[in-house]
Amino acid sequence: MIVIDVPDPDHDAELAFWRGVTGEKLDVVARHPEYHGAKLGGQEFWMLIQRLGEGPARVHVDIHTDDMDAELARLEALGATRVHSTEDWWVMRDPAGLLFCVVPDPPGVLTGDNAQRWD
Amino acid sequence: MIVIDVPDPDHDAELAFWRGVTGEKLDVVARHPEYHGAKLGGQEFWMLIQRLGEGPARVHVDIHTDDMDAELARLEALGATRVHSTEDWWVMRDPAGLLFCVVPDPPGVLTGDNAQRWD
Repeated sequence: MIVIDVPDPDHDAELAFWRGVTGEKLDVVARHPEYHGAKLGGQEFWMLIQRLGEGPARVHVDIHTDDMDAELARLEALGATRVHSTEDWWVMRDPAGLLFCVVPDPPGVLTGDNAQRWD
Repeated sequence: MIVIDVPDPDHDAELAFWRGVTGEKLDVVARHPEYHGAKLGGQEFWMLIQRLGEGPARVHVDIHTDDMDAELARLEALGATRVHSTEDWWVMRDPAGLLFCVVPDPPGVLTGDNAQRWD
């Protein structure tokens, strides 16, 4: 999954732009309304647009896992470091200093499907 | 396609990390050896790692098209601006200021397949 992080003043224009580019509606994510996104046509691949409270625009990668503890340990062994966790996911830093997220899958977090809860 | 741009000093560690994460070999791109990449397993989706001569690490999106002129015009109408072109692709800026690339498809550019040439 790819996430485009956008400061609030640019958010609406950016969301409209990527809706146009992808041809997807990029619906709001009910559980996390700072995100809009969609699975891109014909691919097991999501694009999300995140409204940021602060910080510069950037792009980051999400890694999905059905075993969070094992995946965090695997990524640490590969050279990533833990930055912080939220209720639903972990933020890590890769060897070049780029942030990425590790997100539980299946992504009830994103679909708002309460059949899956990790909190 | 997603591209992870990495300054030279961090490049080799970053490439090794993302090889481990994806489980893909991320081969060098013959025609553009500053890139390593692979189609990720089971998806019509590429990840590339680019060695940068300068500038900070970042992630950017590539958009593929089989009609470069039409796609550039479409993206401009949506709000993107042209930044510069290379021999093979265009760099554009989105409404939040993020750079992305527009790449001709089929990607002979990336596979090194000389059956497709745009220069």
